[in-house]
Amino acid sequence: MNRISFEEVQATLAGVLEKLGFSRDRALGCARLFAETTRDGVYTHGINRFPRFVAMVRNGSVDVEGSPELVTRFGALERWDGRRGPGNLNARACMERAMQLSREHGLGCVSLGNTNHWMRGGSYGWQAAEAGLIGICWTNTQPNLPAWGGAEPCLGNNPLVIAVPREGGHVVLDMAMSQFSYGTLESYRMRGEMLPVDGGFNAEGNLTRDPAAIERSHRPLPIGYWKGAGLSIMLDLVAAMTSLGKATHLLSTDPLLETGLSQVFLAMNPAALGDEPALSQIADDIVASVHNCPSAKEGKKIRYPGEQTLRTRAENLELGLPVEPAVWAQILAM
Amino acid sequence: MNRISFEEVQATLAGVLEKLGFSRDRALGCARLFAETTRDGVYTHGINRFPRFVAMVRNGSVDVEGSPELVTRFGALERWDGRRGPGNLNARACMERAMQLSREHGLGCVSLGNTNHWMRGGSYGWQAAEAGLIGICWTNTQPNLPAWGGAEPCLGNNPLVIAVPREGGHVVLDMAMSQFSYGTLESYRMRGEMLPVDGGFNAEGNLTRDPAAIERSHRPLPIGYWKGAGLSIMLDLVAAMTSLGKATHLLSTDPLLETGLSQVFLAMNPAALGDEPALSQIADDIVASVHNCPSAKEGKKIRYPGEQTLRTRAENLELGLPVEPAVWAQILAM
Repeated sequence: MNRISFEEVQATLAGVLEKLGFSRDRALGCARLFAETTRDGVYTHGINRFPRFVAMVRNGSVDVEGSPELVTRFGALERWDGRRGPGNLNARACMERAMQLSREHGLGCVSLGNTNHWMRGGSYGWQAAEAGLIGICWTNTQPNLPAWGGAEPCLGNNPLVIAVPREGGHVVLDMAMSQFSYGTLESYRMRGEMLPVDGGFNAEGNLTRDPAAIERSHRPLPIGYWKGAGLSIMLDLVAAMTSLGKATHLLSTDPLLETGLSQVFLAMNPAALGDEPALSQIADDIVASVHNCPSAKEGKKIRYPGEQTLRTRAENLELGLPVEPAVWAQILAM
Repeated sequence: MNRISFEEVQATLAGVLEKLGFSRDRALGCARLFAETTRDGVYTHGINRFPRFVAMVRNGSVDVEGSPELVTRFGALERWDGRRGPGNLNARACMERAMQLSREHGLGCVSLGNTNHWMRGGSYGWQAAEAGLIGICWTNTQPNLPAWGGAEPCLGNNPLVIAVPREGGHVVLDMAMSQFSYGTLESYRMRGEMLPVDGGFNAEGNLTRDPAAIERSHRPLPIGYWKGAGLSIMLDLVAAMTSLGKATHLLSTDPLLETGLSQVFLAMNPAALGDEPALSQIADDIVASVHNCPSAKEGKKIRYPGEQTLRTRAENLELGLPVEPAVWAQILAM
């Protein structure tokens, strides 16, 4: 594992994007989101994901010049067309717009159709929280999760992000509806390890912790079994209906052709109701109550969602972003 | 099990409520919500829950005359004080207000503090969907779920409701953050059955399907393990911060003193953006895609959230609401 500075990573990725036709500004913005994702420890969707993103620019799934366009609006609710632009730039722009709406209306919602994979969903949660706003957003995905009782992937793992601002460290949840991603299954298999809890079904239809068996069955487990499967359906419904975009069942199952996604960006501005000191106190008290929960394993602290991110971020900024040499060589050759 | 007509159940419960000091209108409204809950098959929170509700009126946790009062507003975001009124009447009024805001602003949010248990959360999802709106709401609860890695209940099971309108049958998800409620654990234990999947930890800290072991450990499992625990924290944060109400850690662990809850009611009005026929088509297509998902068990159909409700409702309206004779006798004696 190499360590490369944040600035060098951003500049290198931006250079590749400029060669692909991105304007200088958009190249830097898109590269920054990839670099920040690795910086924050979400290695699956940062630098390691960049080659696949480039492949999707090259095969036409991502339009380097596409940027979101307002389709129609009513008060604090807006529908935007992502014009198949880069998913992370589109998502960032739409959360920014939802945030603006929340400053005018107390809350705001942008529903975005015809977009691309947003990479790390948590980015847009942090974005809202850093502005002192509550951010809630989700995306649909290609079918990669069976419906409850289903033999084949029919639902998306539709990540849901909820972020709450807090001076001592924002609280940010970024969770997919699958218990483990295919990337996680693969890394457990490569290490020869079993999953810590059941992660899906084997070929015989029994629950298993064996990652390879789940990869073969294509039946990973939704969180909470029938509950996560139901939540996945609801997130898809709200995203596709409000954006008039594609639902999961209409998306390609080829990862390189997964384009035309539907997403929802919701921002809430509780400070607009006043009493900011009380708001902060409530957030701090809840975080303290989580920290004070007696641990089931001696010496093990209970963490709130996103707590680890700040530590990882500090470490990666100090030491440089961890980069797989093979991936980095591939990017340098682009 | 007796069967009693919806009308007789409603009138009987309303009669009890009037004796407790409810006005005639509020008694009928509150009783209707209890009767509808049993009608729709959510037996734990309908008639069977009524005696506990009455006990909480008698012990002062529920103020029969309390009704929600606007504290402050900004555009489409409002903060209300529930004044410890009956939880189901408060919740219904606040969803109605969020729906009104969504007609004016495209979306609307009412954050409600100082309220009581809303009984069946799904009621307020159905309420929005029946008006052609998307409804999203959640409540916090007393601590009844361990944080991930925690030895004691520190989080609420904080039910989350998402409802989408659809002419052929609304799609309504009503799910708590615990894999199984204590009520469900009890009924499995009474039947001498194991849970269908792991439902919590035993005294040794191992995952188990034994309902009695989980009741003893007080460590039921959050859906998706660490994920549901994280989602529970986020729902509590947003509800308590926006309402300036109590967070889970401040709520009594005595079920008869669980008062002062915080709730969020969000309504979205996608039809305000036009294209209603396209909206309906998208909902129908998603439902069809769920129904068409190949089943893992021959002859077993895949269902969407809320699908079973319509069948149960029709049956219970035709045959009468199923009522435990002992519970009914208790109510008649009130």
